[in-house]
Order: sequence, then structure tokens, then C-alpha cells
Amino acid sequence: MPTPTKPFVGVDLGGTNMQIGVISPDLKLLAPAKRKTKADEGLEGVLGRVVSGVQEACQTAGLRLSDIGGLGIGAPGAIDPYRGMVLEAVNLRWKNVPLAELLEKRLKVPTIVDNDVNVAVYGENALGAGNQCANLLGVWIGTGIGGGLILDGKLFYGHFLSAGEIGHTILLPNNPKGNRSVEHNCSRTTVVDRIVRLIRSGQKSSLTDDVGDDLDNIKSKTVAKHYLAGDKLIKEVVDHAADLLGVTVANAVTLLSLERVILGGGLTEAIGKPLVDRVHKAAKDLVFPEACRKFEMVASKLEDNAGVFGAAMLAMERVREGTK
Amino acid sequence: MPTPTKPFVGVDLGGTNMQIGVISPDLKLLAPAKRKTKADEGLEGVLGRVVSGVQEACQTAGLRLSDIGGLGIGAPGAIDPYRGMVLEAVNLRWKNVPLAELLEKRLKVPTIVDNDVNVAVYGENALGAGNQCANLLGVWIGTGIGGGLILDGKLFYGHFLSAGEIGHTILLPNNPKGNRSVEHNCSRTTVVDRIVRLIRSGQKSSLTDDVGDDLDNIKSKTVAKHYLAGDKLIKEVVDHAADLLGVTVANAVTLLSLERVILGGGLTEAIGKPLVDRVHKAAKDLVFPEACRKFEMVASKLEDNAGVFGAAMLAMERVREGTK
Repeated sequence: MPTPTKPFVGVDLGGTNMQIGVISPDLKLLAPAKRKTKADEGLEGVLGRVVSGVQEACQTAGLRLSDIGGLGIGAPGAIDPYRGMVLEAVNLRWKNVPLAELLEKRLKVPTIVDNDVNVAVYGENALGAGNQCANLLGVWIGTGIGGGLILDGKLFYGHFLSAGEIGHTILLPNNPKGNRSVEHNCSRTTVVDRIVRLIRSGQKSSLTDDVGDDLDNIKSKTVAKHYLAGDKLIKEVVDHAADLLGVTVANAVTLLSLERVILGGGLTEAIGKPLVDRVHKAAKDLVFPEACRKFEMVASKLEDNAGVFGAAMLAMERVREGTK
Repeated sequence: MPTPTKPFVGVDLGGTNMQIGVISPDLKLLAPAKRKTKADEGLEGVLGRVVSGVQEACQTAGLRLSDIGGLGIGAPGAIDPYRGMVLEAVNLRWKNVPLAELLEKRLKVPTIVDNDVNVAVYGENALGAGNQCANLLGVWIGTGIGGGLILDGKLFYGHFLSAGEIGHTILLPNNPKGNRSVEHNCSRTTVVDRIVRLIRSGQKSSLTDDVGDDLDNIKSKTVAKHYLAGDKLIKEVVDHAADLLGVTVANAVTLLSLERVILGGGLTEAIGKPLVDRVHKAAKDLVFPEACRKFEMVASKLEDNAGVFGAAMLAMERVREGTK
């Protein structure tokens, strides 16, 4: 593939903040910018902040908009990447927003839109967690559990454009409704809820040395600190979630014969390799056939930058392919 | 794609029997042939029977081998379709057999090899269960549970070339080892074992009117007859397996955003639509996002011919693409 000669811009559009970056043709971050999303102020306001953030990042990099080869945006929710539409984004309160078209009108730059987790997985695969591979699943552990699939070297969308939603697969079919999915059993939210419930029921944990009675705002970093220090209660809860996530990862590896699984998200970043190794070990014992036991498992490396890099690189790819 | 102008031959190589068919460029079965596999007589013997079966089918169709555009073989086990190798086929007692090369030497016809379930799913998708679709899973319920995936319009192999092994995914993680997988909970073998156990423990079923005390050789057809007649015990066991299979199907639809799932294999053919509808209903309630609830579920239609058609058509495709 020919190397692009122009810089591209990537935007990671979250429910609270947006991060923006100008990425050089040789994949360096030339200039970053940040804005609040403020979705409650409506679509026009958000678009205005994207535009001003992109302009600021370009100025910082010493570039005009006409120097930019394209713009990529990762947005949370259901996306139609072929039409550049946000079909539904609950966090942004958007439904059927033709985001690519609206930004192309304002910025006069070819624009692509994709799901935020897809974009992060794409960036991690291309730049972050090891050499690029063709068949890979990314699992992002956060408030919920997001996923993205690269199959035969391409982001995979499927028929309804929703592929990768591994957090919403059923993990424990015999559990009551609302407690059966991967997300319900392995997300940071669930892990923290369980820890809090156990502490409130009188069990001891060194975590209370840090947070006292303020159990309502426990961060991934605090969980990680006491997990890594070997606190029994925290280890039990996190390891239980990790082992269950291992089952889900094993099933994806078996079904898709995946070469690699990337774990990302706040809890993974905070705990790091011990969490990745725990999930990996649980999964390895369950895959089929034996050849699949060689699948790799790695932690995301780009952390907060995965979305910006991935979005810009996906725009580069689409412009290069001529599909944008 | 240009239509092929020569007939192709498809071979469905099973552990017990092989079925052979000459398929015209407009996808009609011109002539069939059959042989016993007799794997215990060794590789050379099996190859000889494939060759004589192909020759017989060609003669019946009034063709010489030089009139044939290519040969496709579906074989049970782990296959490398790119090298035409049978990596391991327990039923055939083969390991690392360069099947395509060995047959090309004998028949002088371009030969491709693929997994038997892949080939059947490919045939069903192209010719059998409804119009061709791009993102589809086939689930074959038999002694075990086999699967095949078509993604973005192509058979999907994955990194270790083993994709589709849905029968070996974990369905009930809390069950004891050996009783956790889809195959252990939903195959015909499991269904029949459970029925027999319940009858032996004294429960009543109309099935004993047909088989008496001979509970060791219950066929799919017999199970189907009493299921369709509404026998309570049989219905409970089959429906339980179908509902669990629905969970697995739902997870595949959610992860891959599949348009369609084909159910095949002996038990599906025997019971037909009521089984397909039961699995479909169980799965529909569990998929995510809501858009995926539109996924279709259909029964295989080509039955015994799916493998022969699929193998021949896959050979046509590979020759047409120039990858064979």
C-alpha cells in the first residue's frame, strides 16, 4: 500500500470529553487538542467543539485544514461506517446523525466515522500491542465491556454492522435475567459493586484503609493497588471476574480461530499484566483445537491515545483504498 | 464472476462412506457415485476408492477426466485448505496427508480440500437454504456439533485454520469438566443419552412402543417421530437442548452480527421446522443489539447432497479465482 503523504486527524468522541490529534504520515502525534463534549447542549454545540478542536490541533501543528488528508472519528454507539452515520449513541443523545457529512460540510476534509471501540482496537493492532495481526479481538473492560473484531486484516462489521458486542453475549445461561451476560459478570462496574457489597456485609479489605466509608466512588486505580498488594477479598472478586472473562475469550478464540486478544480499558490499564495473564490462563485451558492454545493475549499499550491514532489511521486506510 | 464452462466433481469423504457427484456448470447433479471409505485399510486404499468413484461418476455422466474443471473434497477433521492438506482426521486415521497433491497426481485435475462441515455450509448457502448471504453460521447437530462460518461472503478459516468449532465452545461454565461444552449439552448423542437414562430410571415415553427394551440404537428419526407426536419426555429433553443451543446461536449472532444461521445434521433433518423454530425463538430473545433480532434461522435443504455440491462449487470458485 502506498504511504499517505498528508497528515490525518483523529477524534475520540466520548460522552464527556473529546480528544483530538494530528497524526503525521509516519504515524507520530504532531499535535493534540481537547474539548468537553457537553452533549446536553445539543448536536450543533458538539459539532462546533469538534470543529474548533480540529482547527486548534492543526494550528498547533502549523498546518491549514487544506493540508489534512482526512478526518477519522470514533463515536460511542451503533455506527454505520459505510455511510458515516451515528445510528444511535445513548451517551450523546443522538439518533441517525449523518456525522461524516455534517463535518465534511464544515471542514471540507474527507471524514469517516466508526465505533469508538473498533477504532481503539484498530489503533492498538496497528501501533500498540505487538505487531499487526490479521485475526484479533479487542475486549475493553470499563463501565461495561466493549469489543472490536479484526478478521482477515479488516475491521469486521457483520450484517447489522454491530459485530464485536462481546459484552452482551450470555456467559451464565442459568443465571436470572439481568445477570447472565459477560458485562454483568466481568465489567469494572460489577467488580466494584461486588467489592462494595462484601465490605458492607462486614468482610475485611485493605481497600478501606484508602477510601474509609466512601465506597461510592472506587476507582480502577484503587482496586488495582490492593489487588497487586495481594488483598484477599479484592483478589477473589477480580480473579473470579477474570476467570469468567477467560471463558468468553476462549469461546471467541475457538469460534474464530483468533491469533490474538487485546485487553484494554481502565481496569486492564490499572492492573496490567497480572490481569491479562489471569484471563489468558483461564482461556488457554478451554480453547479448541489444541493448536489454538498458541493464541496470544496482550494488554493495550496506547491507552488514551488508541482512539485518536486508530481513527486517524482508519481514515488514512479508507482514503487510500478509495472508499472515502 | 464468469460462469465456469466445465463440470466439476465434488466428494464428501466421510468416516464410513464417501459420496461423489459430477456437477454441471449450471449446478445440476449430472451423475452420482458411492463408495465405502474403509479407512482401516489405509490411505492408499481410500485414495483408490476416491479415484474409482470419480471415474465411475464421470463415465455415468458421459465425460472423460479431461472434461472436468476441478475436484473438491470435503474431509472430516482439521484441514489446511490453502495447501490441500488433511492435518488430522481421527475418523480416517490420517495425519498430515497432502490429499490435494496425491489426488492431482492420480487424476490430473486441480483439486481442493476443505473441512466437511465448511463444505456443506458453503453448499447450503449457495444452493440450499434460501438466497446466498454474506454473514452466516452453519450448525450441524449430529454425533457431535460441527460448525462453519461464512463471513464477508467467504468461508472463514482464522489464524489456526480451525474457525467454526462452535460445538467446542463452553456453554455452562459452572458444570463439571466434560459437561460444559455445546456438544456435551446439545448434540444428538447427548439428547439420546438423556432420553435413555430417563426411560431406564422408570419414566414413561411413547418411544418404548417402537423400540421396546432396545435402547442402544435409537435413531434421529425415532426421536423425531415421538417429538412431533408430542411425547412429554422426548419434548422436554429435545426442547431443553434446543433452548441451550439457542444461547450459543445468540452469542454467535451478537458477536458476529450474523444475517442467518443454518441448522443441519441428522436431528435437524428428522424434526425439521419445529426444532429450528424452537432454537430461533430461544436465540432471538438474547441477541444484542435489537437490530440483530431480524437474523434468520433456516433448516438445511440439500441434506446428504450439501457436501457434494459444496465441494464442487468451492473447487469452481477457487479455480475461477485463480487460487487453484
